[in-house]
Amino acid sequence: MLYDDAEKWSREEIEKAQIERLRRSLQQAAASRFYGALFREHGVNPDAVRGLDDVRRLPFTTKKDLREAYPDGLLAMPHADMVRMHVSSGTTGAPTVIYHTKNDLDWWASLMARCMHMVGIRPTDVFQNMSGYGLFTGGLGIHYGAERLGCLTIPAGAGNTKRQIKLITDFNVTAVHIIPSYALHLANVLRDMGVDPASLPIRFALVGAEPYTEAARRRLEEMFDMKVYNSYGLSEMNGPGVAFECTEQHGMHLWEDAYIAEIVDPETGEPVPEGELGELVMTTLGREGMPVIRYRTRDLTRFLPGPCPCGRVHRRIDRIAGRCDDMIIIKGVNIYPMQVEAILMAMPEVGQNYLIELDRVGVMDQITIKVEVKEEFFVEDMRALTGLQKRITSRLRDEILVTPRVELVEAKSLPQGEGKAKRVVDKRGTDS
Amino acid sequence: MLYDDAEKWSREEIEKAQIERLRRSLQQAAASRFYGALFREHGVNPDAVRGLDDVRRLPFTTKKDLREAYPDGLLAMPHADMVRMHVSSGTTGAPTVIYHTKNDLDWWASLMARCMHMVGIRPTDVFQNMSGYGLFTGGLGIHYGAERLGCLTIPAGAGNTKRQIKLITDFNVTAVHIIPSYALHLANVLRDMGVDPASLPIRFALVGAEPYTEAARRRLEEMFDMKVYNSYGLSEMNGPGVAFECTEQHGMHLWEDAYIAEIVDPETGEPVPEGELGELVMTTLGREGMPVIRYRTRDLTRFLPGPCPCGRVHRRIDRIAGRCDDMIIIKGVNIYPMQVEAILMAMPEVGQNYLIELDRVGVMDQITIKVEVKEEFFVEDMRALTGLQKRITSRLRDEILVTPRVELVEAKSLPQGEGKAKRVVDKRGTDS
Repeated sequence: MLYDDAEKWSREEIEKAQIERLRRSLQQAAASRFYGALFREHGVNPDAVRGLDDVRRLPFTTKKDLREAYPDGLLAMPHADMVRMHVSSGTTGAPTVIYHTKNDLDWWASLMARCMHMVGIRPTDVFQNMSGYGLFTGGLGIHYGAERLGCLTIPAGAGNTKRQIKLITDFNVTAVHIIPSYALHLANVLRDMGVDPASLPIRFALVGAEPYTEAARRRLEEMFDMKVYNSYGLSEMNGPGVAFECTEQHGMHLWEDAYIAEIVDPETGEPVPEGELGELVMTTLGREGMPVIRYRTRDLTRFLPGPCPCGRVHRRIDRIAGRCDDMIIIKGVNIYPMQVEAILMAMPEVGQNYLIELDRVGVMDQITIKVEVKEEFFVEDMRALTGLQKRITSRLRDEILVTPRVELVEAKSLPQGEGKAKRVVDKRGTDS
Repeated sequence: MLYDDAEKWSREEIEKAQIERLRRSLQQAAASRFYGALFREHGVNPDAVRGLDDVRRLPFTTKKDLREAYPDGLLAMPHADMVRMHVSSGTTGAPTVIYHTKNDLDWWASLMARCMHMVGIRPTDVFQNMSGYGLFTGGLGIHYGAERLGCLTIPAGAGNTKRQIKLITDFNVTAVHIIPSYALHLANVLRDMGVDPASLPIRFALVGAEPYTEAARRRLEEMFDMKVYNSYGLSEMNGPGVAFECTEQHGMHLWEDAYIAEIVDPETGEPVPEGELGELVMTTLGREGMPVIRYRTRDLTRFLPGPCPCGRVHRRIDRIAGRCDDMIIIKGVNIYPMQVEAILMAMPEVGQNYLIELDRVGVMDQITIKVEVKEEFFVEDMRALTGLQKRITSRLRDEILVTPRVELVEAKSLPQGEGKAKRVVDKRGTDS
């Protein structure tokens, strides 16, 4: 099958399938050493699951659990039934492994094919996969999906830009899988060759592996005269094919026939109110070899409320706002640096860098945000600067729900860098 | 299907299928621009093919033809039916492309699975593919075969030796795809870690991409306490899965239900006598998207005469003795440097290097072979050296059918190097 009709299911059809499949997933999971013990400990009885509310009573699974169960503590079927494994060493060292049976690979391929079909990619398209293959799931995951859909699939792999360009032009490539930074590099090389990137035949780009902004997406779309679609996936849930944008390009439909998704407060594990930012928690409904129940992805996102104009009822998640591990708690409120960044970067007066400083005055937490202002706006007109400072303060308060002190500083006066380490300075001491 | 029963077919069954499939392949090929024109030019009528002798009347296809037909001159079905392509840039620059339909990939995978099954690899085995993926057919070709067979397949890719070792030990890997030089490197790294390579769980190694000697195979087998099986394939015939050793390890069974193989004189294109060295010429019988008829592989081998003790009747080819382009013609006889090398390297007294010099004395070609003798044998005992010289001369004459002048020289006195360029010096001028 190219894709089944689950893409078009109603909420009732999705929920009916979810309950049945959850029960089966739990039964399968119980056969593994890890879940066998966990379910006994928590008194989980798969047959007693009656409704989706029961999901919340199931124990979580964490990355740490996967690491400790390495190599085969979560294997739910005989070793001989497995036909693939992907290993991620992760950024912190200890590896995790995900196993797949033939059926698992089939379903994964069809979910990925569904994503591509959703945005208009067809068997007549020529698809170039500019992703590294091997243990990284982005390579084989997308490759199998493209072949399943019936595209002429070019396993170009990563790198070798001149050859990538030759393949694109020689074979009239209409769809690509590419990371945004590489797309920019490709554009530069093309321009050096005197070729306008927009003159290439590419109409679709699948983009997943890197965080990048909406502005960067639009720039890529104009640059290459193509549509860029965001993809979300993680190896613990197979890899690519978990959630994908429709042509509305407003949120990624998460395939609820294959996964149960929740968004929880990373501190308490309790569901956040609809539409609020929290940690994505996922349960596999279709993986027989290695089901994973209520997996704490550490990825921050929110469900976009309301129906999608495309008509699909599979819930949409917003683009990933960061990792839970970046979370700051101030005055009892969870704040993510990405929230601050999103507000600041949307203001034309703001420069490249900002710094979040946390301090304690008496028993009160205080948050100070130092913001670089672009040279042309950093004028001696105190009134203009004060106005900008007030606007930034107000917008940040609306987003993070606490009132920060905002300090405007000159361009290039803050340390450059990305990630929590350099964006956040916590002076509150270890007792906070 | 894991593998069909064609592996066990009788000669009659093979030939019956070959004729039917050849006719179909020719009909399919005729739909391509290239073969459409070629068949008209040569008056080829696919329906008139009655027996296998008719193969010899079909025109050859060369690498040059594939290059000139780039990118789609050999495409025999609509572009939209293709789901994969592999491009080889080759060593000489101009690219060639091979297209595959879904059916083509299916058959390729099952041929590769048949190879692995033949030597005893089973779904219970854990298979680590230490080959680069992407456009190189060795990666995805072997990967699909291993998954089709049902092995737990680890797409490790090339490089990262420490991780390769961790995967092998953590997942109890019993079968690998590896190139011989990398296996030696792996052994060195293991020893540096204080690990005996023989203590690893690997029982089977598939080896294909590099030329290496029988002695090197035996050394690898002892080193790792595993069986090493030679594989032959080329991207024009899909890639791996064309021919593979059985457990006799004496010649590679070429799957004659999928290919018609001939061995011809590279100069005349006429068949060589059974058992003699020549150029392998191959015709696809199962590739619908892009059939290739009588492809001049430029690879030198011979059919091993007689039945294989394993009982399979698919003809065996000897390990590849080199490339046709290395051929020397002397006194009207075709000689390949690899023939000389094989004789010399089997003699314990012979050192690392040799040099073939071709000269003309009057109208007569003369071949002189300078042979390094190991230090410990290069003694002042003229009688011993004369005896060695006579033995070398006699063995070479038996192999190459002309009598060479043999000169024994000191170890390390000849230029080091590999390949025709440095092994052969032709002083006969361009009129030869």
